Amino acid sequence: MTTAGRLDPADHPEHGSAAAPGLTPVDTHLAEVLAALRPVPPVWLPLADTDGGVLAADVTASTPLPSFDNSAMDGYAVRADDLAGATEEAPVTLPVRGEIAAGDTGSYRVEPGSCLRIMTGALRPAGADAVVPVELTDGGADVAAFRRAVTAGNALRHRGDDVPEGAVLLTAGTLVGAVELALLAASGQGSVLVRPRPRIAVISTGNELAEPGTPLVPGRIWESNSYMLAAAARQAGAVTQRHRLPDDPATVLSTLERLLPDADLLITSGGVSMGGEHDVVKAALSKLGTVTFRKVAMQPGMPQGFGVLGPDQTPIFTLPGNPVSAYVSFLLFVRPALDALKDLFPQRHRVVTAALTAAVRSPQGKRSYLRGVLDPAEATVVPLTGQSSHQLGALAQANGLIIVPEPVTRLEEGQAVDVMCLP
Amino acid sequence: MTTAGRLDPADHPEHGSAAAPGLTPVDTHLAEVLAALRPVPPVWLPLADTDGGVLAADVTASTPLPSFDNSAMDGYAVRADDLAGATEEAPVTLPVRGEIAAGDTGSYRVEPGSCLRIMTGALRPAGADAVVPVELTDGGADVAAFRRAVTAGNALRHRGDDVPEGAVLLTAGTLVGAVELALLAASGQGSVLVRPRPRIAVISTGNELAEPGTPLVPGRIWESNSYMLAAAARQAGAVTQRHRLPDDPATVLSTLERLLPDADLLITSGGVSMGGEHDVVKAALSKLGTVTFRKVAMQPGMPQGFGVLGPDQTPIFTLPGNPVSAYVSFLLFVRPALDALKDLFPQRHRVVTAALTAAVRSPQGKRSYLRGVLDPAEATVVPLTGQSSHQLGALAQANGLIIVPEPVTRLEEGQAVDVMCLP
Repeated sequence: MTTAGRLDPADHPEHGSAAAPGLTPVDTHLAEVLAALRPVPPVWLPLADTDGGVLAADVTASTPLPSFDNSAMDGYAVRADDLAGATEEAPVTLPVRGEIAAGDTGSYRVEPGSCLRIMTGALRPAGADAVVPVELTDGGADVAAFRRAVTAGNALRHRGDDVPEGAVLLTAGTLVGAVELALLAASGQGSVLVRPRPRIAVISTGNELAEPGTPLVPGRIWESNSYMLAAAARQAGAVTQRHRLPDDPATVLSTLERLLPDADLLITSGGVSMGGEHDVVKAALSKLGTVTFRKVAMQPGMPQGFGVLGPDQTPIFTLPGNPVSAYVSFLLFVRPALDALKDLFPQRHRVVTAALTAAVRSPQGKRSYLRGVLDPAEATVVPLTGQSSHQLGALAQANGLIIVPEPVTRLEEGQAVDVMCLP
Repeated sequence: MTTAGRLDPADHPEHGSAAAPGLTPVDTHLAEVLAALRPVPPVWLPLADTDGGVLAADVTASTPLPSFDNSAMDGYAVRADDLAGATEEAPVTLPVRGEIAAGDTGSYRVEPGSCLRIMTGALRPAGADAVVPVELTDGGADVAAFRRAVTAGNALRHRGDDVPEGAVLLTAGTLVGAVELALLAASGQGSVLVRPRPRIAVISTGNELAEPGTPLVPGRIWESNSYMLAAAARQAGAVTQRHRLPDDPATVLSTLERLLPDADLLITSGGVSMGGEHDVVKAALSKLGTVTFRKVAMQPGMPQGFGVLGPDQTPIFTLPGNPVSAYVSFLLFVRPALDALKDLFPQRHRVVTAALTAAVRSPQGKRSYLRGVLDPAEATVVPLTGQSSHQLGALAQANGLIIVPEPVTRLEEGQAVDVMCLP
C-alpha cells in the first residue's frame, strides 16, 4: 500500500529500535494501521456535495473551455481590417449595428464596414475577428470612433484556449477544493465520482462521564473527549457524529452494531485501560471483530488499540481516555488514517527545530510528546508546566509538541529539539 | 481598528505609491475594507455548535480541574506509611477492602493497615494518600502484596492541578478548535458566548450562467463562481449559501433583500463590469445601500466593489465575474475580511521567495498575481501557460501566485520573486 510507505518505520530506524521491551514503536503502530486501511468506496455525488472529497477517476473535458469564442472585454466587435488606418488624428468611424450581451444566444454577424457593441463573455459574432475595448473608443451608441488599429484576435478568448476538448481536467486522487469545484462546474459536471469525506463515529465510554452543562457530583467528570475528537476529525476533513455511553457492555455493543453501517471509521476513547474488569469496550469489541491492543512506546498515549469490526471490516481506533493522550494519539495515528481513507498520501506533520528554554525529562524507551510554546521567530520552545496526560490546560496553551526520542531521558536548556506544530 | 493595522498600506509604501494613475493600490483597498468591518455579534451557543467560533469573553473555571483528587492509574489506594518497610524480599501485604470504579460516587475510606482497589479517574478515598499501580503489586483481589514503598501523593491527581478554580481557561478572542472544545467541555460549559462562524451568501449573476449538469447552448456557460467562492469561504471558516440569478434588477434586488437578515456578509460576482448598461448588481445595490466601485491596481481582479447594505449595514463585496479574478480577489480581500468578522487578526498569506524558471511580463502600474507551480525544495517557481483571467485550468494546476510589483513590467528567468502560497 503506497500510503504506508511514506510514514514507514524505516524512516526512523533509530527510534523504532529504541522502544522499551514489550512496547511497540510509534512508527510500527502507524505503519500497521495504514497497511490495514482501504480507501472509502467512491460514489457519484452532486457537484455541490463533492467539496472535501477526492476524485476517484480522471475527469475529462467533454466540451472545450471556453466552449465558444467570446469577448474578453466590454467594447466593440469589429473586423480588424476595417481599422487598419485608424490614428488619433484620423479615427475610423463605424456604424454600430446592434449589441450582444453575455448570455445572448442569438445569431449575429459583423458586416464589413460596421461593428457591434459586445459585452464581456458574449459570443463572438460571425465576421468579427477582434474586439476593441470601450476605453479605446468614444463609446458611441450609433456610430463609434476608433483611434487606433488592432490586430486580429484582440480581446478575444478562443474556444478551448483554457482547456481543450478531451483534455484531462483533474486526475484521480485530486482533493476537491474551491478551485477544483470551479473547474468541474465550469466544464458542466453535474455530478462527480468521488471518495466522499469519511464518516467518523466518535464514542466516549465511562460511568464517570457527565454532559457539560449538567450538574456534577464528586467522582464524576464532564465528558470532553467526544467534543475534541469530533472537532479534530472535522478539521481533518471528516464528517462526524458523537456518542457518550455508560460502562455497560450491552449498550456499547448495541451502539457499535447500530453505528457500523453508517461509519467509515469508529473512534472510542476510554474503557481500554490496563485494569481489566472495567474494560467494557474491549468486551464489546471482541464480539464484533478483531482488535489488537498494545502498549506503544510513547508518552502520553501508551495504551492503543486498532482493528476491524463487522461485516464491512470497518476500522476502529480505541484511544486512551485521558484527554491529552487521546489528542496526541489522534494526531499521530488517526489523522494519517483519515488521509489514507481518502486515498491521499498521509500528510506529514510539520516539524521544526527549536532550542529548549528549560530542561525536560522523558522516560527511557518511550518517545515523549511534551506540550510546548514554540516561538518560530526566535527558534525557541518553552516546555509548559502541566505535562500529565489529564492536563488539558497546558495543551490549550501549547502550539507544538516537543519530541524527545526513545533513548533520551533528559534534555538540557538550550538543546535543539524537534517540535511538531499543532494544527 | 487594530485589525486594519497589520495589513496597512504603510507596510508596503513602495507598492502603494506605484499604482497607475486612477487605480487604487491593493493595500489601500484592503485597509479600507478592514476598517469598515465590525465583528459579528456574539451569541450564546450550545457547546457543540461553537466549533470554529471565537470566544467573545474570557471563560473562567467555575470549578477546579480536576474537581476532586483522583487516581492517575489502575491500582490500589493506600496510606503511604503502611508501605514504609516494603521491599522485594519482604513485601508488605494489605487486605483489599473493596474497589472504587471511575464514576463511583460512593463514600470510601482506607483504614490504617488496609487498601482499596482503585481505577484510573476514581475519587481518592478518605484516608488514602497514594496509589500504587497494579503493575507494582501482585494484583491480589483479597490481599495484595506491595514490594516497594511509595511517597505520599504517588499516582494521584490533585483537585485543581490542571486548572485552579477561578482561573481564566481561555481568553476572549480565542478561536475554538478541538482542544479549546475539550477544555470548555471538561470545565462543564454547556453553552458559550462566541462570535459564530460568519454566514456568507454567495450570489452569481448573469443571463449567460447555466447550472452544471444541464445542457448548454452557444453563448451560455456553466456557472462556477458560486461553487468556488462558497467552498473558499467554508475553508476560511464561514457557513455559506449559494444563489445563481439572472441579469434582472428586480430579481437581484428582491433576493438581496431576502438574504440580508440572515447574512453577515454578501459576495456577488459578475454584473459590475465597466460596461454600464448590463450592470444589474450595481443598479440593485444603489437602492439598498452604499457601495464604492473602483479599479484596483492589480491583475487579475481590477474592478472591485465594497460597501454596506440594508438596516444592519451588512458588508458586501462585488467581485469581478471572471473566475480567476474572483478567486484572487477572494484571497486578497475576502479572506482577511472573514478574519475581521471573527474578531481575529487577519492572517497573512504565506509568502516565500523563489527563482523564476521563465521570464514573465506584468502591466505597468498594476501588481500582478501570476499562477505558478512552486517547488519549495528547489526554491523555484514555474509560471504557467494560461494567465488570462478566465483560464481556470492553469489556476487548478497552480500552488502559488507569483507577485510582480506595480513598477515592474518584466522579470527574467532566474530572478527571485515573492510567491504567495495558495491555501
